[in-house]
Amino acid sequence: MGESAKVLRHVVLFSFKESAGRSQIRQIEQAFCALPAKIQEIYEFEWGTDVSVEHLSQGYTHCFLVTFLSKEDRNKYLPHPAHQEFVSLLQPYLDQALIFDYWASR
Amino acid sequence: MGESAKVLRHVVLFSFKESAGRSQIRQIEQAFCALPAKIQEIYEFEWGTDVSVEHLSQGYTHCFLVTFLSKEDRNKYLPHPAHQEFVSLLQPYLDQALIFDYWASR
Repeated sequence: MGESAKVLRHVVLFSFKESAGRSQIRQIEQAFCALPAKIQEIYEFEWGTDVSVEHLSQGYTHCFLVTFLSKEDRNKYLPHPAHQEFVSLLQPYLDQALIFDYWASR
Repeated sequence: MGESAKVLRHVVLFSFKESAGRSQIRQIEQAFCALPAKIQEIYEFEWGTDVSVEHLSQGYTHCFLVTFLSKEDRNKYLPHPAHQEFVSLLQPYLDQALIFDYWASR
């Protein structure tokens, strides 16, 4: 299967500092969810909070799955002003972050 | 949006011990990829290895994204003999595991 038939998944996991209140976390969730409307390179977007039962979430509470059609689109997303503005909003409240990209067969 | 319109994503990240050779890792990849044919509760399945550029993959090298239509299907998957057989194959070579489940809007 050629690369054209694949999508690039960008998995983002966060946990927040104890100092982050519910309103700050809600603001961050909403700001991330606003990015697809601002960054045309985002092909698909979904997110959710952990409901696993295996006690292996390693402290992470939020997962955002951002999908791109190409490496070039991912590379435009990362330094995009709207993404960078989001990162600035997030940074004071961020405890841990994990970012993992993979090519997935559709 | 009702829960019926959502899917349950089961994100699985692995890293392997130094002692795991390429053939062992390949065998584990193939064994995980064989599960959808053995476990009818798996609705969607995809996987890939890390190609991120932000140096935040926290040592993880493999991501598997298993999708279920319900919590009940996830709960049948976890103790399923085929899944448990896979876990036994994996265990000697596993360094880190992270498992994160979330409800995603379709």
